Amino acid sequence: MTGQAAGKTEQSSQKPAHKPFLAALSGKTQERPPFWFMRQAGRYLPEYRKIRAEAGGFLDLCFSPDLAAEVTLQPLRRFDMDAAILFSDILIVPYALGQSVAFEEGRGPVLEPLEISALEAKNLHEAAKPVYRTIRAIRKQLAAEKALIGFAGAPWTVATYMVEGGSSREFKTIREMAYKKPQRLDRLIALLTEATTEYLLRQIDAGAEAIQIFDSWAGILPQPLFEKYVIAPTAEIVSVLQRRYPDVPVIGFPKGAGLLYQNYIAETGVTAVSLDHTLPSEWAARHLQKLCPVQGCLDPMALLAGGDVMLDEAKRLLDIFSGGAFVFNLGHGIHKETPPENVAVLSAFLKGE
Amino acid sequence: MTGQAAGKTEQSSQKPAHKPFLAALSGKTQERPPFWFMRQAGRYLPEYRKIRAEAGGFLDLCFSPDLAAEVTLQPLRRFDMDAAILFSDILIVPYALGQSVAFEEGRGPVLEPLEISALEAKNLHEAAKPVYRTIRAIRKQLAAEKALIGFAGAPWTVATYMVEGGSSREFKTIREMAYKKPQRLDRLIALLTEATTEYLLRQIDAGAEAIQIFDSWAGILPQPLFEKYVIAPTAEIVSVLQRRYPDVPVIGFPKGAGLLYQNYIAETGVTAVSLDHTLPSEWAARHLQKLCPVQGCLDPMALLAGGDVMLDEAKRLLDIFSGGAFVFNLGHGIHKETPPENVAVLSAFLKGE
Repeated sequence: MTGQAAGKTEQSSQKPAHKPFLAALSGKTQERPPFWFMRQAGRYLPEYRKIRAEAGGFLDLCFSPDLAAEVTLQPLRRFDMDAAILFSDILIVPYALGQSVAFEEGRGPVLEPLEISALEAKNLHEAAKPVYRTIRAIRKQLAAEKALIGFAGAPWTVATYMVEGGSSREFKTIREMAYKKPQRLDRLIALLTEATTEYLLRQIDAGAEAIQIFDSWAGILPQPLFEKYVIAPTAEIVSVLQRRYPDVPVIGFPKGAGLLYQNYIAETGVTAVSLDHTLPSEWAARHLQKLCPVQGCLDPMALLAGGDVMLDEAKRLLDIFSGGAFVFNLGHGIHKETPPENVAVLSAFLKGE
Repeated sequence: MTGQAAGKTEQSSQKPAHKPFLAALSGKTQERPPFWFMRQAGRYLPEYRKIRAEAGGFLDLCFSPDLAAEVTLQPLRRFDMDAAILFSDILIVPYALGQSVAFEEGRGPVLEPLEISALEAKNLHEAAKPVYRTIRAIRKQLAAEKALIGFAGAPWTVATYMVEGGSSREFKTIREMAYKKPQRLDRLIALLTEATTEYLLRQIDAGAEAIQIFDSWAGILPQPLFEKYVIAPTAEIVSVLQRRYPDVPVIGFPKGAGLLYQNYIAETGVTAVSLDHTLPSEWAARHLQKLCPVQGCLDPMALLAGGDVMLDEAKRLLDIFSGGAFVFNLGHGIHKETPPENVAVLSAFLKGE
């Protein structure tokens, strides 16, 4: 199977369907900017919570292709976004490399203590096979004008979880390691870079039509370490993906990178960037959108609040960004307490209804 | 008593002592940039831990003028920094307004649920009196060439603790409030702005020679809320302080503000800014240091690591910033596990020893 895998209404004998999301990422300004929302498949939806409860653990859900495909598609049925994003988790890669990961309710992920020498890439695809199956299952059900996004965590962000043993507030262990044991961290990042590249290539093989690389903790590093651990590994991944799949766009999300978004775009070669909500929007429109298509960046708390304040913020962003190639999104994932009605109101607004 | 309170070796009959820290803040490039470190008085020092244990609780230490003065001066005895910073806490203001605050070992501060209507400014100075006494006690012991920094948390950052009930990871309650109950948040911020102004004026009355305003959570807001809750209240505080004490410099520290450091400097009127370690240094030297003196911004993890990597980073920053008005500091407070020897090595290096 190749990256050209057909959507259910897309036949090789027909003209390929127009996909507004992919058109925007190819650099074309769309009259109505396409939209999707980070974490659009998730706990704020009752139908997600139902399937999540049936599946057992969180990883069980990620590894059940039919259920994972189902939760991927749930938000599109309700809100008709322009893109679906694979339901999965950025910690699939450490798991597939052999570091055990548990998701405990209300506590976030817990990873066993890291032993870099014990990590092995040889079982990566065997362990990740259900993810590739999920992608195929989604593509079979996805409408022709919708695009499917595959994703992975960036090596730096995934490494923070592996080194810290889970979520962190101050990231002391890995930041100290960057200064004191750089060879050790370099080795981990190199391993993750290779595994992430392989993992994303297989996602595209299976039918992912665009890739997003989530670097949620890019913003905690001083510039020299940002260059080394955020930009360099991402550039390596992007170059391999683009060599093999030149038509598959890669969206980078170096959350919190601020000014360094400029360097990130110039030096990683990503097709587009996702902007977080703390980045000044006018500056981003002026300085980043001329470099590449941008995606973003409504404050998820405005979506949680809903009403006029949400729509006013959405209008403000449309005014700023819709003169260029733009995908409307949030600046961070949907908060789990967000009323689905707010997502419905915003989606209707974005569709011009 | 006025802001002209004398240091122990400073007499009105003599020429005022040269204070390199204040000279740098007045915009003069110093041949050797003066230095101090955020959280230089603290848990990484055994002599601090000894006094902390004797004092009882953390608030007891903050409210014991002799002990608080002693821990303020401890790091200068060891490392001979150019400035001392009052030992206190940004949560003194909520405490003095009537919201009870407890510091629990290993858990961070815990504040009782906020009732804005129950807060009262009338006991502010009575409650904060030990802080003013601490300042007088420090000034009596401080060498003439050293400067004493007073401080407070910025209204936004202090409000995050008051609304969230302590430290937070996602700041959901206050960010939601900013969209859904802005009047409520506006009222809290207005109250804090007034109380903080009064509190800082009294610190200067008691002998503080410079003020730092810590806005540790400035970086989590989108630009419109940053303008409203970070810039506007800070501008109000600064304007009153500068009217009453035009010669007392005010250093703003909008941690994580990125590009918005520019707006912050232009719109708050602060004398100088403290830079965090994630802000690209060359950019800051080019775009911020021409606007005002800057302070910063070694990664505290480089100090924790020590050795050549620490000194190389320090040299890099000196190369970038020491052509203009500059105070060497960290980009965030000293980590509690930092070996005091590293601070000694860095301090000796900064003094050219």
